[in-house]
Amino acid sequence: MKYAFSDRVKHLQSSAVRDILKVVGKGDIISFAGGLPDDDLFPIEGIKDAFDRTFKSGKQSMQYAETEGLRPLREVIIDRMGKKDIVNYSPDNVLITTGSQQAIDLFARIMLSAGDIILTEDPTYLAALQVFHSYEAKVIAVDSDDDGMIPEDLERKLKEYRPKCVYVVPTFSNPAGRVWSLERRKQLVNLVHKHKVVVFEDDPYGEIQFDRSETYTPLAALDDGTHVLYTSTFSKTAVPALRTGWIVGPYQVIRMMAQAKQANDLHSNSLSQHALYQLCCHFDLDAHIQKISDTYQGRMEAMVAFLEQANVPGLSFVKPKGGMFIWIEVDPCLNMTDLLNKAVDRGVAYVPGQPFYAGEPKKNTMRLNFTHATPEKIEKGLTLLLELIKEEMEVQAALIN
Amino acid sequence: MKYAFSDRVKHLQSSAVRDILKVVGKGDIISFAGGLPDDDLFPIEGIKDAFDRTFKSGKQSMQYAETEGLRPLREVIIDRMGKKDIVNYSPDNVLITTGSQQAIDLFARIMLSAGDIILTEDPTYLAALQVFHSYEAKVIAVDSDDDGMIPEDLERKLKEYRPKCVYVVPTFSNPAGRVWSLERRKQLVNLVHKHKVVVFEDDPYGEIQFDRSETYTPLAALDDGTHVLYTSTFSKTAVPALRTGWIVGPYQVIRMMAQAKQANDLHSNSLSQHALYQLCCHFDLDAHIQKISDTYQGRMEAMVAFLEQANVPGLSFVKPKGGMFIWIEVDPCLNMTDLLNKAVDRGVAYVPGQPFYAGEPKKNTMRLNFTHATPEKIEKGLTLLLELIKEEMEVQAALIN
Repeated sequence: MKYAFSDRVKHLQSSAVRDILKVVGKGDIISFAGGLPDDDLFPIEGIKDAFDRTFKSGKQSMQYAETEGLRPLREVIIDRMGKKDIVNYSPDNVLITTGSQQAIDLFARIMLSAGDIILTEDPTYLAALQVFHSYEAKVIAVDSDDDGMIPEDLERKLKEYRPKCVYVVPTFSNPAGRVWSLERRKQLVNLVHKHKVVVFEDDPYGEIQFDRSETYTPLAALDDGTHVLYTSTFSKTAVPALRTGWIVGPYQVIRMMAQAKQANDLHSNSLSQHALYQLCCHFDLDAHIQKISDTYQGRMEAMVAFLEQANVPGLSFVKPKGGMFIWIEVDPCLNMTDLLNKAVDRGVAYVPGQPFYAGEPKKNTMRLNFTHATPEKIEKGLTLLLELIKEEMEVQAALIN
Repeated sequence: MKYAFSDRVKHLQSSAVRDILKVVGKGDIISFAGGLPDDDLFPIEGIKDAFDRTFKSGKQSMQYAETEGLRPLREVIIDRMGKKDIVNYSPDNVLITTGSQQAIDLFARIMLSAGDIILTEDPTYLAALQVFHSYEAKVIAVDSDDDGMIPEDLERKLKEYRPKCVYVVPTFSNPAGRVWSLERRKQLVNLVHKHKVVVFEDDPYGEIQFDRSETYTPLAALDDGTHVLYTSTFSKTAVPALRTGWIVGPYQVIRMMAQAKQANDLHSNSLSQHALYQLCCHFDLDAHIQKISDTYQGRMEAMVAFLEQANVPGLSFVKPKGGMFIWIEVDPCLNMTDLLNKAVDRGVAYVPGQPFYAGEPKKNTMRLNFTHATPEKIEKGLTLLLELIKEEMEVQAALIN
């Protein structure tokens, strides 16, 4: 039987994220791939207590529920976002989603017709690229540096391509570990107002911040509630398994997304929503976030120290101020996609940079995750990886001479 | 700000299901709308125990997980489906979904390009229609009677429209409460083989069977594993809030759906998957299903008895052999969509038949749910509803004379 799939599947391929999750499952490999939080830090007792409270609160938590999500949880989310100066919204502006991945997918579904254009950073979150492509949209990369999108290039492309929307991860980005400057954030918000385009601010990592003396204002806090959609998740701050994220934005857009969600899965797991509500009420989530951020910072510092002392020619990176990833550029003679199999054979995994690019990829790049390995494993894994890189550079040099 | 939505949203409207869930939330209305199981029958202790076991089993249940779903749960599902003679599949053929609604959505996403044709019964599940329309597919209704689709009309439409697929709910259908005969099931499977078309068998209600002496063979048990996709859910047998359904079918199709799911939500809530696995291992789910089926049968009998003794001219229905709904036709002078507001004002809700039709709707129809109200409430609610119907018939008769 030959199955006649839709045109859409041409753009659906098994992505690197998927293959990563499979590699991670195998025993002996030290993985800097994936974007897994450390399960040793999961607040298991807090979660267990939250479920116990939910079970005691009655049977209603087990029934079908509203598509928009549990209202008390939406109220808690509004309250938490208020502390980040996102203040233009009420619980009616919040939609609970099955992880923030679903928020990206529903947004694309209601926004992007085949052939529509969306602007992104380069590199950007690969599973977002996969979503945009699956709706047959065209993704155009805006030139970016370590401070964010370059406003002149953004404005030129807003004029030239007349895109439907802009997708950005401005705080501790995946994969680049980048933080946009306040100036660039303001410029982006001004430009999308000027050109009447919505911007999707993906912020799964914003709370994993290493130096708490700095403030990174979300785009949603610089907007008047009309042009920015903001999404985040409990996956990095509590646990991923509950698949509970949210999106907040203009009511008209959120309402349309809720209708799309109803067709997609009726509503997200509501027992987990009740439990997360209880967790937010009875567990010190902020202290927990501080604790995991401190631990992750230690691992990031270990990784950075090792990379610096190894002194590999051509290797460069920007030290992350938060999040879960370091983005590394190596000597241009290397193709990190081609090297992955050899690395896995030696017992270490990473994500090659190539699939994160909407435009022309830099093949001599990779993303390393620092949250899921102890400092000892980081040292062992990096030793294996940097040895391989040095050997390959010698091989390439020998080929040229 | 005027938001420029995708072409897809033209087909997304707030559906009756959505409005129903809102009506149900309001205090005093006796609701025969919705498709809610009775929360008094939820196996809360069993679920609580299953979560306790999950928490004890370790932190892995809290981490990111495979898109395809928890393998031990997929094994349990294969085992349970084996008892229904669905034997052509391994756990690799199973994809765990966020309720069976997501299975419908992912199937449509990978199968239906804009303009593609899908055949359905008439009436059929309205949220499936909503999904198909949202992918800009064209839905064609096949003539059906109480035994299922009429094979001659099905074959004619397979030839004439060359559809991508056929969608059916052959056992205790929503909304019609219909059961296909074995003969019709075999004819459908033969026809889709002959015309090389896949069929999506939606079976959320199959286990809620009243007379256990009869056997209703799923289409998936009549197929050789190549042409039938079969979906079901724990929502009606355990609890809806866990949003855990599954789909089984040819590996190539399931694999493509898994890729679509990865873009959609990465994976479904895995803590709930672990808990449902524990529930299946340590709780007598079959005895529980027998218990809820018995209770629902009692309510169905109460509803049928009341409808029969009320003797309303023009009112007819088929007594359900399982599931959660009675489909009712009333005098052709009545439009049950128009009557809904009056009914709700009087304190009783139902779903008008109109939105369940892919083709020309019969407006003198409605769907009544019998699982969520006690026999006392059934009597009270039906008294209100039938009084309204009789009054309206008198009004209509007066208008004509």
